[in-house]
Amino acid sequence: MEFSSFKFIGCDTKYEDSKKVIFGAPFDGTTSFKPGTRFGPSAVRESSVGLEVYSPYQNASLEDAGVADMGNLEFPFGNIDAVLKMIEDTVDQIVSDGKIPLMIGGEHLVSLGAVRAIHRKYRDLKVVHFDAHTDLRDDYLGEKFSHASVIRRVWDLLGDGCIYQLGIRSGDRAEFEWAESHVFQTLFDFGGLPNTIHDIGDSPVYLTIDLDVMDPSVFPGTGTPEAGGVSFKELLDACMQVVKNTNIVGLDVVELAPCYDLSGCSSLVASKLIRELLIAV
Amino acid sequence: MEFSSFKFIGCDTKYEDSKKVIFGAPFDGTTSFKPGTRFGPSAVRESSVGLEVYSPYQNASLEDAGVADMGNLEFPFGNIDAVLKMIEDTVDQIVSDGKIPLMIGGEHLVSLGAVRAIHRKYRDLKVVHFDAHTDLRDDYLGEKFSHASVIRRVWDLLGDGCIYQLGIRSGDRAEFEWAESHVFQTLFDFGGLPNTIHDIGDSPVYLTIDLDVMDPSVFPGTGTPEAGGVSFKELLDACMQVVKNTNIVGLDVVELAPCYDLSGCSSLVASKLIRELLIAV
Amino acid sequence: MEFSSFKFIGCDTKYEDSKKVIFGAPFDGTTSFKPGTRFGPSAVRESSVGLEVYSPYQNASLEDAGVADMGNLEFPFGNIDAVLKMIEDTVDQIVSDGKIPLMIGGEHLVSLGAVRAIHRKYRDLKVVHFDAHTDLRDDYLGEKFSHASVIRRVWDLLGDGCIYQLGIRSGDRAEFEWAESHVFQTLFDFGGLPNTIHDIGDSPVYLTIDLDVMDPSVFPGTGTPEAGGVSFKELLDACMQVVKNTNIVGLDVVELAPCYDLSGCSSLVASKLIRELLIAV
Amino acid sequence: MEFSSFKFIGCDTKYEDSKKVIFGAPFDGTTSFKPGTRFGPSAVRESSVGLEVYSPYQNASLEDAGVADMGNLEFPFGNIDAVLKMIEDTVDQIVSDGKIPLMIGGEHLVSLGAVRAIHRKYRDLKVVHFDAHTDLRDDYLGEKFSHASVIRRVWDLLGDGCIYQLGIRSGDRAEFEWAESHVFQTLFDFGGLPNTIHDIGDSPVYLTIDLDVMDPSVFPGTGTPEAGGVSFKELLDACMQVVKNTNIVGLDVVELAPCYDLSGCSSLVASKLIRELLIAV
Amino acid sequence: MEFSSFKFIGCDTKYEDSKKVIFGAPFDGTTSFKPGTRFGPSAVRESSVGLEVYSPYQNASLEDAGVADMGNLEFPFGNIDAVLKMIEDTVDQIVSDGKIPLMIGGEHLVSLGAVRAIHRKYRDLKVVHFDAHTDLRDDYLGEKFSHASVIRRVWDLLGDGCIYQLGIRSGDRAEFEWAESHVFQTLFDFGGLPNTIHDIGDSPVYLTIDLDVMDPSVFPGTGTPEAGGVSFKELLDACMQVVKNTNIVGLDVVELAPCYDLSGCSSLVASKLIRELLIAV
Amino acid sequence: MEFSSFKFIGCDTKYEDSKKVIFGAPFDGTTSFKPGTRFGPSAVRESSVGLEVYSPYQNASLEDAGVADMGNLEFPFGNIDAVLKMIEDTVDQIVSDGKIPLMIGGEHLVSLGAVRAIHRKYRDLKVVHFDAHTDLRDDYLGEKFSHASVIRRVWDLLGDGCIYQLGIRSGDRAEFEWAESHVFQTLFDFGGLPNTIHDIGDSPVYLTIDLDVMDPSVFPGTGTPEAGGVSFKELLDACMQVVKNTNIVGLDVVELAPCYDLSGCSSLVASKLIRELLIAV
Repeated sequence: MEFSSFKFIGCDTKYEDSKKVIFGAPFDGTTSFKPGTRFGPSAVRESSVGLEVYSPYQNASLEDAGVADMGNLEFPFGNIDAVLKMIEDTVDQIVSDGKIPLMIGGEHLVSLGAVRAIHRKYRDLKVVHFDAHTDLRDDYLGEKFSHASVIRRVWDLLGDGCIYQLGIRSGDRAEFEWAESHVFQTLFDFGGLPNTIHDIGDSPVYLTIDLDVMDPSVFPGTGTPEAGGVSFKELLDACMQVVKNTNIVGLDVVELAPCYDLSGCSSLVASKLIRELLIAV
Repeated sequence: MEFSSFKFIGCDTKYEDSKKVIFGAPFDGTTSFKPGTRFGPSAVRESSVGLEVYSPYQNASLEDAGVADMGNLEFPFGNIDAVLKMIEDTVDQIVSDGKIPLMIGGEHLVSLGAVRAIHRKYRDLKVVHFDAHTDLRDDYLGEKFSHASVIRRVWDLLGDGCIYQLGIRSGDRAEFEWAESHVFQTLFDFGGLPNTIHDIGDSPVYLTIDLDVMDPSVFPGTGTPEAGGVSFKELLDACMQVVKNTNIVGLDVVELAPCYDLSGCSSLVASKLIRELLIAV
Repeated sequence: MEFSSFKFIGCDTKYEDSKKVIFGAPFDGTTSFKPGTRFGPSAVRESSVGLEVYSPYQNASLEDAGVADMGNLEFPFGNIDAVLKMIEDTVDQIVSDGKIPLMIGGEHLVSLGAVRAIHRKYRDLKVVHFDAHTDLRDDYLGEKFSHASVIRRVWDLLGDGCIYQLGIRSGDRAEFEWAESHVFQTLFDFGGLPNTIHDIGDSPVYLTIDLDVMDPSVFPGTGTPEAGGVSFKELLDACMQVVKNTNIVGLDVVELAPCYDLSGCSSLVASKLIRELLIAV
Repeated sequence: MEFSSFKFIGCDTKYEDSKKVIFGAPFDGTTSFKPGTRFGPSAVRESSVGLEVYSPYQNASLEDAGVADMGNLEFPFGNIDAVLKMIEDTVDQIVSDGKIPLMIGGEHLVSLGAVRAIHRKYRDLKVVHFDAHTDLRDDYLGEKFSHASVIRRVWDLLGDGCIYQLGIRSGDRAEFEWAESHVFQTLFDFGGLPNTIHDIGDSPVYLTIDLDVMDPSVFPGTGTPEAGGVSFKELLDACMQVVKNTNIVGLDVVELAPCYDLSGCSSLVASKLIRELLIAV
Repeated sequence: MEFSSFKFIGCDTKYEDSKKVIFGAPFDGTTSFKPGTRFGPSAVRESSVGLEVYSPYQNASLEDAGVADMGNLEFPFGNIDAVLKMIEDTVDQIVSDGKIPLMIGGEHLVSLGAVRAIHRKYRDLKVVHFDAHTDLRDDYLGEKFSHASVIRRVWDLLGDGCIYQLGIRSGDRAEFEWAESHVFQTLFDFGGLPNTIHDIGDSPVYLTIDLDVMDPSVFPGTGTPEAGGVSFKELLDACMQVVKNTNIVGLDVVELAPCYDLSGCSSLVASKLIRELLIAV
Repeated sequence: MEFSSFKFIGCDTKYEDSKKVIFGAPFDGTTSFKPGTRFGPSAVRESSVGLEVYSPYQNASLEDAGVADMGNLEFPFGNIDAVLKMIEDTVDQIVSDGKIPLMIGGEHLVSLGAVRAIHRKYRDLKVVHFDAHTDLRDDYLGEKFSHASVIRRVWDLLGDGCIYQLGIRSGDRAEFEWAESHVFQTLFDFGGLPNTIHDIGDSPVYLTIDLDVMDPSVFPGTGTPEAGGVSFKELLDACMQVVKNTNIVGLDVVELAPCYDLSGCSSLVASKLIRELLIAV
């Protein structure tokens, strides 16, 4: 009797033997507009069945990449502190074991837990942030911890000059003004990427990809789609540039809300991006 | 220039002149399975346009019922305390002004805010609770405040013998065992309603209707549908019995998650139930 | 080379040889709430492929019923007069050829064209009307010709005491009051059907079935679903009673809007009802 | 690090320790109308997360039922023989190990593989068959092996008088005529169930439940919904009667096609039925 | 007690104090293919909640633009004359009060009412028309007034050489031939925009944007999507060019049919375009 | 009485008088991931109603192209041999009658039946293949005949150097390695098209277009969408180059699965491409 696996295709390496680890962080408790990213990780795994393990882009196979899929964390909704702590502990363990974590969101706030763990080990950490939204609010309706303020909370940890934002096309006026003196920001596209890579040099990098950086036509399955984004090819190319030219120590792919794209294409787009990242990193 | 209203049909009475007040509590931050009830209040208003103001069931019109529609509260997601406080303050105001509030959820936890305000005024309050789920967990994954424990929190306020649950068909074993000595419970249907009404007598009553008490065929638009529920006619009949034979001082209708019912019928079912309640109360 | 037909299953009889004729009237130009019934006739044909031609209810096959499927009329949207005239001419032709027409809507206003043609031939025509809505408004926002006033327009032709409404559960107060002295009305269900059949005796009958007489759980695919309706079995039984005990000279099945029921079940329900009607009539 | 399981809730018993075994047979290669049942098993597992393990109907918990969830078989689409052989081998193994298999379809043809294995061990096997359709065609467009002829193929194995069909409401004339002298058939409902149970006595029973026996309002998520079916409560009650009064040696639940019910309710209905079956059997 | 607004974000200026006025014209009564644009205005408002009021494209905020949102007109479906008259009167009032109207459709025919009012004040009016379709039929199935002939009716008012069409990629042969001698036409893209702007000079301009000028990948939520259209960025850029280089006296954005895009992205695309237009005009 | 046609718009030429013939091959029995292409042909016809017969791209009308629409073949699901034989016979007849067939799929395996018939007449046949996937597996889970191996089966007939693949971006490693010595392959786009056309010269050409060569944003309605594809304009341009510069003797358009694109845009994209192909060929 042989049965099918529930893991991301080609990620059947045991944790002990793995070099890279993926896990799901299905939380969307602070989402202000349309929730549903909690179903992102499972959708990514299911749609991975429609992919091949082999990448003609990199002429390499995911099966040779040594990836373990650990499944999803199970969260108490409504308790942000507990959720962030669980993520932090998980990433801490993975990093301590000398592996690279790729977390699948969930809403963007989950990145904070991961950055906390990684920053503890890598004090000179840089964050590369692909997103449609700045996520730099100091608070959102009085709340400090929210998907709309996650990068501001990351800044609380890292300080000025450590965060590189690209593809940004939405935020309130105060966020853009604050950004000018605290983070590096490329509006609308990835034009600033070569400078970003040059700037970062050998520093350890955490790459956080909010999938809504893509145009809604390419990626409608997200809670706050924003017109005027990049194409899949542009995002894939930007990811490859970062992964191949910097020292990635952790990464995440967040804000897939599969229920808003009944065609399933958004999940497939996310799956393919994750496959390419896992092979390349 | 004359333009259409955005209010629930027939609820154009000014607050000052009203006898009954409806408002939306679009919160779903503790939902453990499928979120989306935050869009319930708006969906109810939109679909009310497909209704008539006149009820052939009661031979009466909603336009004569003196109802003010105040719109929706605006919540900070992720901060349960703040959300419950805003609801409590709103209901407190309405009750202090001598009016009857009908709150439209949102997830079931919002009822707690309303009961807190009403219980402050009516210390001998009874709660009649129509639901598929017991909602009697002491905590859910460690969290005290959640849609799965809301009635337990109501019990914290009211104590033994003040809560009447009907239509219940889901819960964990511990909830059912705890219920035996603390609340009155009718499983599966409304068989215990005559006794409930007799028991309550003249006491002030808060009626909380979790719409998932209905069968998923009738009401698929909810986050945790549960097979084997009651029909619309059975629910309408039970509501009319309670409203006409007890002293209702407040009520709510919760757990409509319109995005799971693309036909829009769940919203229409909720709207029609609300129309009948507003006329009858 | 043999190819599949686009007709309703089992309705391949040539017009010349047929005893019964079905055609589509895909018009929804006066729909006030949610349009889409224009796609009803095509949806009914497509879903008929999922049915058998044989009815175990009547132990008879649609293939033996001598039915011709003529396809759909093609309408100029925005010109109500032209639309009604096209329907009237079509039904006139069918009736003149000694056949029974079954028109598939479209919105309910299409019935007016058919009744006009049939009433010209049968001056003592009675109309049996299954519906959730009275459709007795004298006008709707000033318009005389609309799906909300179609039965009132039929009354203009037939006069008092010729219209029997059953299953009605929605209308404005004025409609219900007007109905008392002009039409026979059974609210909520088919309780008045035996009396209706007795009353009608041998008179020629036009049966018009607004599918929204069914409960939204059974038939969500319609523009103005109304909670609290009848089941499929109840409707089928009522139809069989009318068809087998009166002298049907024409009939229609209207208000299927397939796009609101993505499961396709509403179309299948309509198809099955039409199969049973075509065999029985 | 603790992660969530992908199994049906409460079915975490190891195969070695289990008394009952569930597995998925995600095949829909012969579906003639609307495919999609291949996604049934995964949908059932996912929606089981929205259920409790405790049943208030039976006052018992699925966690105490000793059930192992083995996952899904992986099939070569287009090769019916290979698919049936894989199912047969799997069921053979489970039965040989003294456990009761519950297979989750997939289209109805998968039952044939299971019956083949079970009949080898239990030569006096009876089959109880809940379905809207007879499935008694000798062939379908020339094909002997198809979801429309599966029970006929079962009859090839078992012979006359061993098959009890209930809830049947669709088929062609020849199927109904053939049925009269070869199988026991109750049309439209479960009226013949007491006689069925009496007849069967102590014989080993395979129970095959085509979920489309339920009304499309209750269970729209299937490829060939058929109006006029039973309710969830009626089906649950019928299942309990069979399971508690006969000697069940194997069973299946087939024809869930989740993509036709975007609300997810059909999957939940199937999950709940499976929970009750697993506890009761 | 503070409640949320139902207006387009940042458009809370009182009519008296406003410089620009938006209102909805939810009419789709002549739609020949797939109706549903009547829900466009409400969808635009709802999805505006997912936007920021600040535009990084223009470094300006909608809150500073002095916009009043008046809500939607309420139309009698089936009476084209009355609908056009209501729009004409509304726009007449707004223009008379010295404000710029931005009408949200509805189907394209609504533009005729607006142009009638504006042309009365500005006799040398030019119309800039972005669309996939020519809309130049003299009649459609005999009807003079329809979404397929609206620009021809506008030509009846303005005459030769006053209409500039861009992005056109669909029409019948006669329309294209007629266009050659009566209007300026750029096929497939905005290549002719610089010449258009130069030509128009200081003349007053009405800008009418049929959103289906965009590619269906970007804007699937419309009744007659047409492959091969422009991107959001191309449309936004073209709009900015027209608004900033000509004398706009009125504008509209039409043909959003939200029900065909369940992701909601089409509504968001429309909302963002409207935000940019309202700031820039 | 005049009724609408069910044919593709502008394809009403009788078979005898036609020069080109379209027919549907609604088969998806070997689909490994998400089925549904069986509904492709009907969806294409229905959505063709939303197109014009006139092409501004080619300044020509489909009505002048002499096309007959024969409808759909009716297949026994589960019997691949019979399905391929029916297609082969149909194409054989059309080609023998001196006409050009354009087959509408269905899954890609249907192309094999068509190529068999055409290759019998044209022994020096070349195949131009637009696709996201190589389809060059020798077998799929042991099965020789499947949508994933169809071009390998075509190679069995034609041999080395006769197949030109363009737009390919998915396959397993072995497929890409095998391809190097047996077929011409352009990865990711149509860059190799000029060379392809030059190479082919005057040879007869069968053009097979798997619509998933387009990006999922443009064409989500397919069973195995693959991120990173071409735009509609790129595909249309490539088609025009092949059709106008080679000797096309047959063609197909496959893998539209309309149920995955509820907006209907994928069907419209396919319809428009087919219109352009039918005019140009």
